[in-house]
Amino acid sequence: METASSNQVVQVALLQMQCGPSKQVNVERALESIAQAASRGVDVLCLPELFAGTYPCQSEDHACFDEAEPLDGATAQALQASAQEQGIVLIGSLFERRAPGLFHNSAVVYDADGTRRGVYRKMHIPDDPLYYEKFYFTPGDLGFTAPRTSLGKLGVCVCWDQWFPEAARLTALAGAQIIFYPTAIGWHPSEKAEYGAAQHDAWETMMRSHAIANGVFVAAVNRVGVEGDLEFWGAAFVADPAGRILARASHEHPELLIVPCDLALIEATRTHWPFLRDRRVDAYGGLLSRWLDDGVAET
Amino acid sequence: METASSNQVVQVALLQMQCGPSKQVNVERALESIAQAASRGVDVLCLPELFAGTYPCQSEDHACFDEAEPLDGATAQALQASAQEQGIVLIGSLFERRAPGLFHNSAVVYDADGTRRGVYRKMHIPDDPLYYEKFYFTPGDLGFTAPRTSLGKLGVCVCWDQWFPEAARLTALAGAQIIFYPTAIGWHPSEKAEYGAAQHDAWETMMRSHAIANGVFVAAVNRVGVEGDLEFWGAAFVADPAGRILARASHEHPELLIVPCDLALIEATRTHWPFLRDRRVDAYGGLLSRWLDDGVAET
Repeated sequence: METASSNQVVQVALLQMQCGPSKQVNVERALESIAQAASRGVDVLCLPELFAGTYPCQSEDHACFDEAEPLDGATAQALQASAQEQGIVLIGSLFERRAPGLFHNSAVVYDADGTRRGVYRKMHIPDDPLYYEKFYFTPGDLGFTAPRTSLGKLGVCVCWDQWFPEAARLTALAGAQIIFYPTAIGWHPSEKAEYGAAQHDAWETMMRSHAIANGVFVAAVNRVGVEGDLEFWGAAFVADPAGRILARASHEHPELLIVPCDLALIEATRTHWPFLRDRRVDAYGGLLSRWLDDGVAET
Repeated sequence: METASSNQVVQVALLQMQCGPSKQVNVERALESIAQAASRGVDVLCLPELFAGTYPCQSEDHACFDEAEPLDGATAQALQASAQEQGIVLIGSLFERRAPGLFHNSAVVYDADGTRRGVYRKMHIPDDPLYYEKFYFTPGDLGFTAPRTSLGKLGVCVCWDQWFPEAARLTALAGAQIIFYPTAIGWHPSEKAEYGAAQHDAWETMMRSHAIANGVFVAAVNRVGVEGDLEFWGAAFVADPAGRILARASHEHPELLIVPCDLALIEATRTHWPFLRDRRVDAYGGLLSRWLDDGVAET
């Protein structure tokens, strides 16, 4: 399935959602869209980060832990059943309750027959005003992987991971042909006018750079709409292995973005931009350090 | 010199050059521009990659080795004297002859008093049609560093390094506040119409992503003009730590691009986008591997 010569076009769908307080409504909407996508020939669909509820991390609220479910909970079961029924590869995002008092921001990959092919637990956890994720989520302990599906190897990273070239690189080295980024990122009302355009541009630029550096497709899906003090900026997109934006959703509206991705472009791009050939793995030891400066205090 | 509170604006200059076959002419032009820059208040100037000659790697020609010089050769001495005379921090690029038959693509950093603060030997060496660098240059063995100058810590990577997030990360972790990229990159005449815009955009996107991911300034300087089968695309630029392009030179003409860079933006950006806080150094071991896929052959 991963040979260079195959001209394997995968129909990738990103479901840009507006998510409300009712888990039942959010999940039903997602399932309806998955069925619609399947009827339109989609091969793989990715949901936004924590799509089953409003973004839970705008404050540190113990009540929000009640939203969490185990990896085989009701929401996961609904996604799995939908993947199987619709014959679609499905990437979902879950507020995972792993054990009493132990939670992760997790993603699951179901193959088109409903088999769960992989679980990813968000490795890089943010903590900024209105994104108090370190209160809720233990950093992932499963590393960066690329679950093998009937479509090929599909990597998943989640939101804050977007800003870390290491995450994309490791996912690509694990064999990922497409890296999906379920996301929940938005503008602060006090910052949007001055910084909003630059923030969105930086976000997209980072992920386009992951596509280029690694010769992979990148597919990012965000939520839209105002929740509390955040305006989620949508703009789901797919970039090809040369970093070109193939399609981008709006900033304002829910959307089912469907993008054909020819996986043969991966090897064509990598042989013309042979970065993987030339990595200096002998000289990268410092990447395992927090800081390499000499630390001499100066005045 | 690196405290957060200082409002330290550095006047950065990039000398986008058209380089001809005469080393004497190229060096004289560079020295004239350095003097001009100093008279305009520039603090640090960076020259393009291998500025002393036409780009030597369009073919595999043993005669080109005659262009190489030791790190204390005539060209290096001229640069060092210029830095001292003009009181300017200077980053030069040299075809280094290290020993008989042993060559590097090197950069030197001179402080404003002429002291040599650092040497960088290009770590990632390309080899593509018209860029046969592996024939000429041994990959660098000095690693990624950030020499301390009177202006702060200045990192240098060279051209092909641009495409490797690892190079920028290691240079930033070494303390670099600005990463300079002397460059020689251009369009193939047969590719420009179809791919030219995307190639330039990918090049700039990668380096903007290094600025964002690391919270540093990035300053890239290329040559311009047609040499043999390559049209060097110029477009020297400086990006701030949020990845915003502060200034960009043309695709066509030699230019002395002068850009004020407020180094206080580094900490301001890093505390708002605290990526260095959250790197998963415990989970990055795979970055020292060439490939992590399981390697199961499939049909």
